[in-house]
Amino acid sequence: MLRYLTAGESHGKCLVAILEGMVSGLKIDKKIIDNELSRRQQGYGRGGRMKIEKDKVDILSGLRKGATIGSPISVLIENKDFSIDRLPAVVNPRPGHADLAGALKYNTKDVRDILERASARETAARVAVGAICKSLLDEFGIEILSHVMMIGGIEAHTRDLSISEIKRNIAKASLRCADPDAEKLMIKRIDSMISKGDSAGGIFEVIATGVPAGLGSYAQYDKKLDANLAGGLMSIQAIKAVEIGQGIEGARVSGLRFHDAIYYKKGQGFYRKTNNAGGIEGGMSNGEPIVIRGFMKPIATLGAPLDSVNIKTKKALRAAVERRDVCAVPAAGVVGEAVVAFELAKQMLLKFGGDSLGETKRNFEGYVKQVKNF
Amino acid sequence: MLRYLTAGESHGKCLVAILEGMVSGLKIDKKIIDNELSRRQQGYGRGGRMKIEKDKVDILSGLRKGATIGSPISVLIENKDFSIDRLPAVVNPRPGHADLAGALKYNTKDVRDILERASARETAARVAVGAICKSLLDEFGIEILSHVMMIGGIEAHTRDLSISEIKRNIAKASLRCADPDAEKLMIKRIDSMISKGDSAGGIFEVIATGVPAGLGSYAQYDKKLDANLAGGLMSIQAIKAVEIGQGIEGARVSGLRFHDAIYYKKGQGFYRKTNNAGGIEGGMSNGEPIVIRGFMKPIATLGAPLDSVNIKTKKALRAAVERRDVCAVPAAGVVGEAVVAFELAKQMLLKFGGDSLGETKRNFEGYVKQVKNF
Amino acid sequence: MLRYLTAGESHGKCLVAILEGMVSGLKIDKKIIDNELSRRQQGYGRGGRMKIEKDKVDILSGLRKGATIGSPISVLIENKDFSIDRLPAVVNPRPGHADLAGALKYNTKDVRDILERASARETAARVAVGAICKSLLDEFGIEILSHVMMIGGIEAHTRDLSISEIKRNIAKASLRCADPDAEKLMIKRIDSMISKGDSAGGIFEVIATGVPAGLGSYAQYDKKLDANLAGGLMSIQAIKAVEIGQGIEGARVSGLRFHDAIYYKKGQGFYRKTNNAGGIEGGMSNGEPIVIRGFMKPIATLGAPLDSVNIKTKKALRAAVERRDVCAVPAAGVVGEAVVAFELAKQMLLKFGGDSLGETKRNFEGYVKQVKNF
Amino acid sequence: MLRYLTAGESHGKCLVAILEGMVSGLKIDKKIIDNELSRRQQGYGRGGRMKIEKDKVDILSGLRKGATIGSPISVLIENKDFSIDRLPAVVNPRPGHADLAGALKYNTKDVRDILERASARETAARVAVGAICKSLLDEFGIEILSHVMMIGGIEAHTRDLSISEIKRNIAKASLRCADPDAEKLMIKRIDSMISKGDSAGGIFEVIATGVPAGLGSYAQYDKKLDANLAGGLMSIQAIKAVEIGQGIEGARVSGLRFHDAIYYKKGQGFYRKTNNAGGIEGGMSNGEPIVIRGFMKPIATLGAPLDSVNIKTKKALRAAVERRDVCAVPAAGVVGEAVVAFELAKQMLLKFGGDSLGETKRNFEGYVKQVKNF
Repeated sequence: MLRYLTAGESHGKCLVAILEGMVSGLKIDKKIIDNELSRRQQGYGRGGRMKIEKDKVDILSGLRKGATIGSPISVLIENKDFSIDRLPAVVNPRPGHADLAGALKYNTKDVRDILERASARETAARVAVGAICKSLLDEFGIEILSHVMMIGGIEAHTRDLSISEIKRNIAKASLRCADPDAEKLMIKRIDSMISKGDSAGGIFEVIATGVPAGLGSYAQYDKKLDANLAGGLMSIQAIKAVEIGQGIEGARVSGLRFHDAIYYKKGQGFYRKTNNAGGIEGGMSNGEPIVIRGFMKPIATLGAPLDSVNIKTKKALRAAVERRDVCAVPAAGVVGEAVVAFELAKQMLLKFGGDSLGETKRNFEGYVKQVKNF
Repeated sequence: MLRYLTAGESHGKCLVAILEGMVSGLKIDKKIIDNELSRRQQGYGRGGRMKIEKDKVDILSGLRKGATIGSPISVLIENKDFSIDRLPAVVNPRPGHADLAGALKYNTKDVRDILERASARETAARVAVGAICKSLLDEFGIEILSHVMMIGGIEAHTRDLSISEIKRNIAKASLRCADPDAEKLMIKRIDSMISKGDSAGGIFEVIATGVPAGLGSYAQYDKKLDANLAGGLMSIQAIKAVEIGQGIEGARVSGLRFHDAIYYKKGQGFYRKTNNAGGIEGGMSNGEPIVIRGFMKPIATLGAPLDSVNIKTKKALRAAVERRDVCAVPAAGVVGEAVVAFELAKQMLLKFGGDSLGETKRNFEGYVKQVKNF
Repeated sequence: MLRYLTAGESHGKCLVAILEGMVSGLKIDKKIIDNELSRRQQGYGRGGRMKIEKDKVDILSGLRKGATIGSPISVLIENKDFSIDRLPAVVNPRPGHADLAGALKYNTKDVRDILERASARETAARVAVGAICKSLLDEFGIEILSHVMMIGGIEAHTRDLSISEIKRNIAKASLRCADPDAEKLMIKRIDSMISKGDSAGGIFEVIATGVPAGLGSYAQYDKKLDANLAGGLMSIQAIKAVEIGQGIEGARVSGLRFHDAIYYKKGQGFYRKTNNAGGIEGGMSNGEPIVIRGFMKPIATLGAPLDSVNIKTKKALRAAVERRDVCAVPAAGVVGEAVVAFELAKQMLLKFGGDSLGETKRNFEGYVKQVKNF
Repeated sequence: MLRYLTAGESHGKCLVAILEGMVSGLKIDKKIIDNELSRRQQGYGRGGRMKIEKDKVDILSGLRKGATIGSPISVLIENKDFSIDRLPAVVNPRPGHADLAGALKYNTKDVRDILERASARETAARVAVGAICKSLLDEFGIEILSHVMMIGGIEAHTRDLSISEIKRNIAKASLRCADPDAEKLMIKRIDSMISKGDSAGGIFEVIATGVPAGLGSYAQYDKKLDANLAGGLMSIQAIKAVEIGQGIEGARVSGLRFHDAIYYKKGQGFYRKTNNAGGIEGGMSNGEPIVIRGFMKPIATLGAPLDSVNIKTKKALRAAVERRDVCAVPAAGVVGEAVVAFELAKQMLLKFGGDSLGETKRNFEGYVKQVKNF
């Protein structure tokens, strides 16, 4: 069972993660992890912190001569701004953040005790974990990408684009948006939000290609692939809705229009002409690309802050202002990739077992052949 | 840790569930469980099976003289139609179902091996589990309801209704819809789908009131209340998207418009005037009603079936036709209540501990007082 | 991940178990489960209850035409004596039982609320689960047996017996003891305990042969095979110590005498001439037979009961007398087999993955070949 | 749910642990952790490494101004000898170690890939985790100690000593043995082992005082306190048997002699005059001191190594010689304390819930009162 824990605060010494259950013999390139960390820090509309942090991973354990050996992999990402003990107390909780509920739960009058860990800074550790999982998936031909479908109400028109067109378009985009015209408007929208002290949310889509049919299971509620992916995506800071395939439209249209008819071609096997299901039927991957979307609320730390209450005096005041982004949808997409990568890597190892990369590959190939000859 | 497993096939002998970790001293009324089971079977547009099944629970263990004693609670719901070994093989997988992916995964040429367990019949067991969880929550003043917000594209207008108005309206509704005008149109839409051999999906909303602030946590990705609820709701058959509060609109509007400003009133404590967050901030309940929506795709078993392939001969044919519903959104809402009830009961017992109802209540009351005097 | 839950009280309607995560395509013979249940009920020194219960399993789900289909397997064992609601309250807790600690924990003044579930009757459900796991292991050539090594201080001399000699000897034994002379003395000891209203404990040994090297792992504390087996065995009612291989003697002798030197023979691979490690090194199976022992305290329900206290009045009195066994070591050995079978089945599916028996076997055979060609 | 993961290799950069689920408001003193780390490194018979390592903890996260804030606590212990990538390959597996089974499992021809993580060096991370758990338990009056009961066949006579006498005696002992005469003989035995290139194992006992009745549960096999403790202790490197209370003798004596009769005294509540059960009945703490013993096999790395096989050439040779201890029973006892501390802290938080130390204490005190007034 692949599993991981993360630790670390926004202004603590560092972020840490332990990833446990990885096969031996997998090559891990620090540069690939650093590249993912860098991708998380990009995107128009990011705040001052992104300028001071250039995240680099330090792999503390789990490798020997650049490859996994079966032992837990631990990674550390240093915080440039390590000041948690010196930073002043915060008494005005920000609406939309963990601040108030956290202060009540953990019984503290200093909201900093809460916001330090609740911060999306934590996702850097998850991106490092995801980068390792991507290295595993890569060995099985599974690829994961994300792109931005909407920011602050501006929608990208990407429905008619193939996955490779999306990939090509976002390569040069500053907001990971595959529709260049929409992206221009998105940038304007972000500029307008900056000037008003306001913020924007949006929608990102994660696509995983090359996933074999049969990951996940309908047999028990907590083994469903869609349930696991939805839980993962919803666990990303600021995500408030998750959609698989054309799930929202699916509530609107009829069965005859929605479901993806099944076809077969010799040599190719079963296939579909549409993918409204987003690659998941009955809680299992069905062999089509997995498509899952995260809906991100606007950043909750605002330049023109909302009404709040001093949690000590109970007097009305304005919410706290921390260093802030104005829009972080592209970054959330990168985190979404990491979350999806972890869930798929976990499912691959559950289905195919194996303790060394070679063993898992052998098992995988046996199954691929079984499906081919089905 | 409260946990449960379910078992049982659609045409097997019965459905079974074991719920483990419940406090002692909780009164369990079989009638309340039966009533929930009955609610799951209702709603305009249900198929023939709902007429032959009148689900009744048999509580096999965990109670003594009508109350829990700390031991696992097991329940059984008999299937009227117990024919799994006699039913013929199915070779034409239905698009939108587990059929094809399941046959490949479990390596069977008889799709019946798959559809028997993948069927939404399994949710009866979850509703029984949820009914027991509701009995616990009831002791803490937590109430859960669901209503239908859309069916087949027909939207209910419920935004301006209070929770008690919604409750009142759905009491007499045949589709659990709080907007009587919309409901009439929904029924027409269902009738039209019946006549065409087509089907409809829709949206339901689950609302939980009385939830204390501080359930769940931001401290680790898999402890977030929203992640747990999203995973739970997405695990319900045919659900393809999950939204918390105004999460979809939240991707569109700005931060100043979206976030729920914080206020304080002596005696009442902290409160909000809006609840766009749906009662969850930073992965924790914030004291406001929890609002979560499930988006259900149209029923995948169709009267006018889609293209499919004979999994033995690989020749094109039409998908299988099982006994079917045309629309099951109200029922999915009832299952959604059960799923939310389980997740909240689990979180309540995690936060407040306790092995007897009295102990958990004492701990709960201590926290309520702590929050009041915060 | 194979997992299970059990439910049911000693005088409730029945015992229930759900076993989840089993591969499809495994033939399950109800007679084999019934035979295991019957073995649990045998052994000289059992009480009156064993005469009235002839446990038979009812398989409620998970099979179609006699084989698994990937869905959860649920089983039910009816209690002949279903009287839990009529039985009188118990106020005098028995030393050595869950009675007192349970009454305090679950806050009840009626010890019956506790003893009903704490009773070893629950192990019937685990034996049924174990029987299914044994059916899986059987497909991989893994066999599990138990025998009695000591009862009430009478030791069996079995060190010089081979596993097949042990097997042969216990086939005809009434206490599952491979040393016929010792068994005669054990029976006398039990008779003497019966006459005094006293009871006896003892030691059983579980041996698993055919286990491939490499189950379990040292990589994380909770993945160690020995830790999992020890937890499992210690979870059996009345077990107070667990030993792997010659673990107790191992604390006494020197390293040069204890450790099992490594040899290699072409065709056969690596092997040992001794097995003091009991088949486990570094938290992993090493290819030798797994040998694990459970130390059972004497039955805590006594005919000549010990001092106790009325939990209502706090006045001194004697402990309660329930229907009782005088010695149940052979039965505990059968339960030990079941526990070991579950843990090994879980580890086999973790290491080899697979969703159908054929897939798991193919993966297993690939590994066997890999080890052979190592 | 309190949980933790560790990472790190013996000659890697460092050891790391993440402990997750701790309440807020708990003061953590780095010196207390360092002191525990130092205790793990002591004891007559330790090897050269203990001289070069003076373990110090670096707390990476989870604290603010010296106290927990509810976020995960991560700790790092640097390895002085960081040479994993430079160290030569090892081809001769040591009997008694993970070496051979690990090489087969993870499919490596270099045993160093295995021994680096399988090494007991990993327990330093667990001791750090245990030190934090002890800080929590300390707030509830729970204290944990360990002492050595046997080394290499030399038994300490401690049965007639009270816990406070044991504590006093081991304060000045060099092997954590409470019987000074035995300790002298133990040292001689170790010296003799050193001179022969041989090694010694032994027995340690962990005692936890102040544990309230009612931790753990009989309700499900995996919730039993004894099962959890046994699993924990057996997961310590080189432990081959675990005994709770007088569990081994319990298999020998009769019920009337073994079980701990129950008494009651006003003001004091229920009590026992004996503690053969080792503080656990029915899988729950019963209010008496918890007593659990670990049986450690002799160190498997020997100066006069055993027969082994070159895993590349398959030719017979001698086992590898790594830097080694000759006896590490006192250290294993310290690790045993850590493991017991974690399990008890986990159970305390499960039973009493709470997110801040104050909340958990309030809940605990309510239960203590409930038990008092039972």
